[in-house]
Amino acid sequence: MYYVELIGIAIFAITGVLAVRRRGLDVFGAITLGIVTALGGGTLRDLMIRSPIFWFGDRNYLWAAIAGALAAFWIGSVFRSTFRALLYLDGLGSALFAITAAHKVLLMHYPGAVAVMMGILTGIGGGLIRDVLAGRQTLLMSREIYATPILFGCTAFVAAERFPTTLGYAETAGIAIIFGLRALAIHQHLEMPEWLTQRDDGVE
Amino acid sequence: MYYVELIGIAIFAITGVLAVRRRGLDVFGAITLGIVTALGGGTLRDLMIRSPIFWFGDRNYLWAAIAGALAAFWIGSVFRSTFRALLYLDGLGSALFAITAAHKVLLMHYPGAVAVMMGILTGIGGGLIRDVLAGRQTLLMSREIYATPILFGCTAFVAAERFPTTLGYAETAGIAIIFGLRALAIHQHLEMPEWLTQRDDGVE
Amino acid sequence: MYYVELIGIAIFAITGVLAVRRRGLDVFGAITLGIVTALGGGTLRDLMIRSPIFWFGDRNYLWAAIAGALAAFWIGSVFRSTFRALLYLDGLGSALFAITAAHKVLLMHYPGAVAVMMGILTGIGGGLIRDVLAGRQTLLMSREIYATPILFGCTAFVAAERFPTTLGYAETAGIAIIFGLRALAIHQHLEMPEWLTQRDDGVE
Repeated sequence: MYYVELIGIAIFAITGVLAVRRRGLDVFGAITLGIVTALGGGTLRDLMIRSPIFWFGDRNYLWAAIAGALAAFWIGSVFRSTFRALLYLDGLGSALFAITAAHKVLLMHYPGAVAVMMGILTGIGGGLIRDVLAGRQTLLMSREIYATPILFGCTAFVAAERFPTTLGYAETAGIAIIFGLRALAIHQHLEMPEWLTQRDDGVE
Repeated sequence: MYYVELIGIAIFAITGVLAVRRRGLDVFGAITLGIVTALGGGTLRDLMIRSPIFWFGDRNYLWAAIAGALAAFWIGSVFRSTFRALLYLDGLGSALFAITAAHKVLLMHYPGAVAVMMGILTGIGGGLIRDVLAGRQTLLMSREIYATPILFGCTAFVAAERFPTTLGYAETAGIAIIFGLRALAIHQHLEMPEWLTQRDDGVE
Repeated sequence: MYYVELIGIAIFAITGVLAVRRRGLDVFGAITLGIVTALGGGTLRDLMIRSPIFWFGDRNYLWAAIAGALAAFWIGSVFRSTFRALLYLDGLGSALFAITAAHKVLLMHYPGAVAVMMGILTGIGGGLIRDVLAGRQTLLMSREIYATPILFGCTAFVAAERFPTTLGYAETAGIAIIFGLRALAIHQHLEMPEWLTQRDDGVE
C-alpha cells in the first residue's frame, strides 16, 4: 500500500509537469511544479486539519515527486505515447489520495462534511496551485469532469463509514466510484452537460 | 446576529459567483468558487492566528455558501436586476466580517496591527483567491475602492477598543465607517484618485 | 543583524512593488503587494513548520515592508537609476532570509530536506504570491536564475551544519554561495542554459 502511494505521488508529478511542459520551463520550475502538484493538496489539508505536514515526516514522498518531475522533464516524450494510460493512473491516484485523506480526517473526529471537503482539496488542490503558478486556466473554469467524481466518491465513503454493515467496504467503494466515473469520463471524452454549465453576458 | 452572519456568507457566495459567471462555469466550479469567496478569507485568518477553522465547527457556514453559489448559478438572472442592491449588502457583509475578525484577533491578545491586518484579510482574502482561481484580474490591480474602507474601519475599531469611553461603540463605529465609505463609493462610482494611482513605463 | 533584516524586508518590498508598478496600481494595492512580497514567503514557512508567524511578534517587519512599498510607490523614479544596485541588494536579502529560515527549521529538529525546502519557500514564496496576485507570469515560467542559487546555498548550508569542522562556517558559506551565484547571474545576464529548458509542442 505504501509503495502504491509513492507511485501515485510520482504519477501526479509526471502528469503535473507534462501538462505545463509545452509552455517552456526550466528544470527548477519543473521540479517545483511537480512537487506542488503532487504534494500541494495534502499540504493544504494538513494545514487546515492541524496535522503535521505528511511529507515532513517521510521524505520519500518528496523524492517520489522530484523523481516524477525529472522524468517528465527529461524523458517526457516517452510518456507521450502512453499519455492516456497516465490519465487513468492519475485518476486512480486521485481516488486513492482523496479517500485516504477523508479517512484520516474522520479518524481525527472531524464531521463528515469536513472529511468530504478535505478529500476534494487533497484530490484537486495541488493541480489548482500548479495551474495558478503556471498561468494556466484552472480546471474550475473548464468543463472537464475531474472533481465531481471525487465529490461523489468521498460522500459515498463518508456515508458508508457511518453504518457497521457497510463500514468494511467504505474505502473500496469510494475509490471504485471515483476511479470508475473518472475512467468513464476519460474514455468517453465526457464533459459537464450543457445544463450544468452557464455562460452569460454578464452582470458585474 | 448569527443569522445575519449566515446571510452575509450566502451573499458573499452569490456576488462571488455572479462576478465570474460570464466566463462559463460548471456547477462544481460555481460551488467551489462560492465557497472560496465566502469562506476563504476567514480560513486564511484562522490558519494564521492558529485558531480552529471556523466552518469546521459549524457547518451551517458551509451550507450557506453552497446555497448562495447554487442560487447564483441557477437563478443568477433574478439577481441581475438587483445587482446594485447586492453590492450594498456585500459591503455590509464585508464590514461585519472584517470587524468581527478584528475583534476575535484582539480577544486572542494579538497586537492591534495584527488585528487590522487580519480584518482586511478576512474582508478581501476570499475574493482574491476567487479571482486568482478564475483567472480574473484581482482587485489589487484595479482602482475600485473596496479594501481601503476596511483598512480605515478596522483601524478605527482597534483604536476605539483601547479606551474605556469608546470601547462600547467600537464595533458599531467600525462597521459604520466601512459600510459608509463603501456605500459612498458604490453610489458615486468613486475610484481611487489619480494621485494615489501610478502607472509608469516601467523599470524592471 | 536585526537592522540588516529590516533593511532586507524593505528592499524586498521596494523591488516587489517596482516590478509590478508599470501595470497601474493604487496605493492600497502597492502596500498589499509590498507586504506580500516581503513577508509572504516567511509566513508560509511559519504556517508549515507550525511556528508563530514571525511578524506577529515584532511588527517592525510589517512597518519596514509598508515603508518600502510606499517608497517604491511615491518615489519609484528615484530607484530607477539605482535599479541594478537594488537587484544585488535583493539577491543579498534573499540569501540572508533563505539561510536564516533553513537554520530556524533545523533548530526545530526538522530533517535537512525540509530545511532546504523551507529556505527556498522563504526566498521565493513572497515573489510567487505577488506575481499571482498581480497577474504576472511567475518566475517559475521564466528562465531567470533566481531560485537555483537558493537551492544550492541551502543544500550547502545544511550539509555543512552536519560536521563539527564546517559548522562554524555554514551560514557564511550558504549566504556567499547564494549571493555569489545570483550576483554572477545579474552581472552576466545569465539565463538557464538551453539543455535545462524545454519547450515542446505538447501532450495534453
